[in-house]
Amino acid sequence: MKAQFSPNFEKAGGLITAVTVDAENGEVLMVAYMNEEAFRLTLETGKVHYWSRTRSKLWKKGETSGNMQQLVEMRVDCDLDAVVVRARQQGPACHEGYKSCFYRSVDSEGALQENAARLMTPEEIYGVKS
Amino acid sequence: MKAQFSPNFEKAGGLITAVTVDAENGEVLMVAYMNEEAFRLTLETGKVHYWSRTRSKLWKKGETSGNMQQLVEMRVDCDLDAVVVRARQQGPACHEGYKSCFYRSVDSEGALQENAARLMTPEEIYGVKS
Repeated sequence: MKAQFSPNFEKAGGLITAVTVDAENGEVLMVAYMNEEAFRLTLETGKVHYWSRTRSKLWKKGETSGNMQQLVEMRVDCDLDAVVVRARQQGPACHEGYKSCFYRSVDSEGALQENAARLMTPEEIYGVKS
Repeated sequence: MKAQFSPNFEKAGGLITAVTVDAENGEVLMVAYMNEEAFRLTLETGKVHYWSRTRSKLWKKGETSGNMQQLVEMRVDCDLDAVVVRARQQGPACHEGYKSCFYRSVDSEGALQENAARLMTPEEIYGVKS
């Protein structure tokens, strides 16, 4: 079954949610957002683009850090307002230097437990102290 | 390293993004949102709760369909506005009857390709035609 795909950008102020996972093993690397331009550029260029809500600008992942994401497959959910991006991640996905942004679990008392290895420091990634 | 955890609900109008994955193999099942009550109830009860943006109400997953989600582990991202929920999913996660809401990929021409098995019809899940 094939059907033309038009994401529902209207549901959340022009953005859809993007969950980016490691194409090799499916690990969730990060959650971010795409506007129509970021979505289109990701498909056209094969480099994953987002919309930065914090900076209110288009964000080509890795443009500052060098830690690009190469699109392998994009999947879309039932109501067309979220995508799963399967990507090959160069270096750490997280600006804190971890492979995944989800490097901490929440324990039964609601406290954080760090349980992933730091691959790089932010200083090594960005050349400045964070 | 332990630290008290307070999610950043303020960044997006009282909600954080929740990515729920199969605790066994890590497959992304669905993307939804939690307000503070849904987050708290999920940790307290071990049953995954969300905030339905469409219905503007608290949503205990499976309350209508019976397809509950049992919390196995919650992980949180670097800026505390998204969680990954590792859960044991009873039946299909998707209201369309697929295991995952992401049952379609987007091909190189931007068209949809369905490539997952339907486990149940919506009628079988909800007892009515959708």
